[in-house]
Amino acid sequence: MTEHDLIRELAEKNASKIVMLVADGLGGLPLTAGGSTELETAHTPNLDRLAARGTSGSSIPVLPGITPGSGPGHLGLFGYDPLEFKIGRGALEATGIGFELGPDDVAARGNFCTLDAAGKISDRRAGRIPSEESFAVVEKLQGVKIPGVETFVKPVKEHRFVVVFRGPGLDGRVADTDPQAVGVAPLDPQPAHAAAAKTAAVAQEFVKQARVILKDEQKANGMVLRGFAAKPALPSYEELYGLKAAAIAVYPMYKGLARLVGMTLVGKAQSLGEQIAELKKAWNDYDFFFLHFKYTDSTGEDGAFEQKVKRIEELDAAIPQIEALRPDVLIVTGDHSTPSRLKSHSWHPVPTLLVADTCRPDGLTKFSERDCLRGGFGIFPAKHLMLLAMAHAQRFGKYGA
Amino acid sequence: MTEHDLIRELAEKNASKIVMLVADGLGGLPLTAGGSTELETAHTPNLDRLAARGTSGSSIPVLPGITPGSGPGHLGLFGYDPLEFKIGRGALEATGIGFELGPDDVAARGNFCTLDAAGKISDRRAGRIPSEESFAVVEKLQGVKIPGVETFVKPVKEHRFVVVFRGPGLDGRVADTDPQAVGVAPLDPQPAHAAAAKTAAVAQEFVKQARVILKDEQKANGMVLRGFAAKPALPSYEELYGLKAAAIAVYPMYKGLARLVGMTLVGKAQSLGEQIAELKKAWNDYDFFFLHFKYTDSTGEDGAFEQKVKRIEELDAAIPQIEALRPDVLIVTGDHSTPSRLKSHSWHPVPTLLVADTCRPDGLTKFSERDCLRGGFGIFPAKHLMLLAMAHAQRFGKYGA
Repeated sequence: MTEHDLIRELAEKNASKIVMLVADGLGGLPLTAGGSTELETAHTPNLDRLAARGTSGSSIPVLPGITPGSGPGHLGLFGYDPLEFKIGRGALEATGIGFELGPDDVAARGNFCTLDAAGKISDRRAGRIPSEESFAVVEKLQGVKIPGVETFVKPVKEHRFVVVFRGPGLDGRVADTDPQAVGVAPLDPQPAHAAAAKTAAVAQEFVKQARVILKDEQKANGMVLRGFAAKPALPSYEELYGLKAAAIAVYPMYKGLARLVGMTLVGKAQSLGEQIAELKKAWNDYDFFFLHFKYTDSTGEDGAFEQKVKRIEELDAAIPQIEALRPDVLIVTGDHSTPSRLKSHSWHPVPTLLVADTCRPDGLTKFSERDCLRGGFGIFPAKHLMLLAMAHAQRFGKYGA
Repeated sequence: MTEHDLIRELAEKNASKIVMLVADGLGGLPLTAGGSTELETAHTPNLDRLAARGTSGSSIPVLPGITPGSGPGHLGLFGYDPLEFKIGRGALEATGIGFELGPDDVAARGNFCTLDAAGKISDRRAGRIPSEESFAVVEKLQGVKIPGVETFVKPVKEHRFVVVFRGPGLDGRVADTDPQAVGVAPLDPQPAHAAAAKTAAVAQEFVKQARVILKDEQKANGMVLRGFAAKPALPSYEELYGLKAAAIAVYPMYKGLARLVGMTLVGKAQSLGEQIAELKKAWNDYDFFFLHFKYTDSTGEDGAFEQKVKRIEELDAAIPQIEALRPDVLIVTGDHSTPSRLKSHSWHPVPTLLVADTCRPDGLTKFSERDCLRGGFGIFPAKHLMLLAMAHAQRFGKYGA
């Protein structure tokens, strides 16, 4: 029996409310030997008080030693094994810019490049064309018309864009066209699986028309396409857990990830304060709330230890407003660690806290990496967090008689 | 996606050096209630200092409660699930005496036995014939000639030997010929799978010729063959991790296990001091170094608690010389526990320590069974140790975007 089948079998409905507050990249490292992490340095009276009430643990996003991107990191938190459920690069890129993929869509990442007179790549990033220039080029590509297929071209940043083909019978298994070198021509889109023959032909037609449209561009007169992918087949929160789920996020990537598991995007918050206001407004309409806080990751990526400490303290200060709604289960966690010291995502376990009246106390009085190692959930795979959420919300029946 | 596929996808090369120091049978037990284990009794200032710098944990060789032999114990440490990757008994026995198996080889363990006039076994161990007598009998068996097949017969100890058949189309699935009783004749080698028909015929011919050669022996005039096995199909360290790996071991078994995963045997060290000298010499030529220290196991097997304590202290004293090479990742672990109290391998978790600049501190200041239970890696499967080694050496890319 798979874990998802077990969840479907046991899931029950009740009036409980679950809040999952994801502080992106929450876990950290000390800057120097014998030092403290960002979370250990931060003054977090509210999180510490919750730690005393709830149960803590250290969650492993994928496997020990494996550093996840945002996609696998969030899939784990949402209860989808990140090694089993994968989001193709094109689908993730489309998701990241807020493009809502449908079941008939195949998305690919595009890079503009510069082609010489012979059609060979002379600059793989089109001279790092500024976004505003690139956006104008993308606009011209709206002129591509392929019979029987709807085509969407969306700018990302600088030389990067996303193309989505929508139509019946499309399949993501098309090979990259990027030769990964200059002095050679972009490859023609080719099927990597027989089922993708039509998609490859559509992509060929797209590239052909684009060449004509872009022929007079100085920098962006060519393109390479990578990471063709259909929308991943993820069971929805409603179908899997019987939860009506709302996502309250600021950035498109996290809104997109939430949409992929069937959450409803709520509000247009641009700050944590606005996110909490949206949470209050939506409180009666949903069972589960995913709140995404970006800045613990971005400060970590910047290597800004003190800024990350401040962002953690900002998060801590918002906790009482969430508590005031009296959620039955309140979870504070991250999708991975982003230690300022490494200026990148890392493999280290993520401090995780769950507060509910049904928690068994584990004797902790502080929320930190070191404390969470000794927490009542131990060191556990992130994909099991939703099992604990459902259990503490008393939304699971008994397994077997 | 399998763990090995994930490793292959994420593995990157850099200039880092990883040292895995395996103290065989490291874990122990107190001799009396309320006492200390061998490791807890030993004075280990260097290991304790490393514990303060690194991250510790308790590794489970196979599964909780399962006591491994040397083969599964080391496979786990090397990152090969010991339940998925198996080394047949014949192949392990050949490996243990330093016989390097090739892809066309099938090995079996042989026991000399005594047959009565009717050809029935009267002594299953040939009167526990002394090794020197047995070696002379093995020498006579070099006279066996089987067309199209090369035959190797190698002594092990007392009545035990190894036979290896080398030739095209051989297969290890041949049934044991040991009836496990006296008063009955040895069984004829029979294929346990259709693909092993040729191998069984070869083994039958071997036994037939051996009967003639040994007919005048007083004790060792017969034999039984067990554990037929081909060389196990293990991906190499180079292919799996992209690591150029060196093995610095004293005993044939551990050299053989390292060879099976594609490590290069370095030097002919006969002591820990010589092993470290070899490590220094080979330092620039490899990425990964497996150092095997046997005596924590052999003293445990002998039930020599105090001797095991001394051997642990000997190992501790050698640590600064390894540190002086400035490995990026230094691991100290064991392939299983061998408590002096039990005089045998055991299932207890193994104290494990990893030191790297990328370690998250776990607050420990001592290396011991009790401390490792509270370490930052928690209680984890030994097969995940190499994931942690690769991560802390920053040899893994990010999984997903």
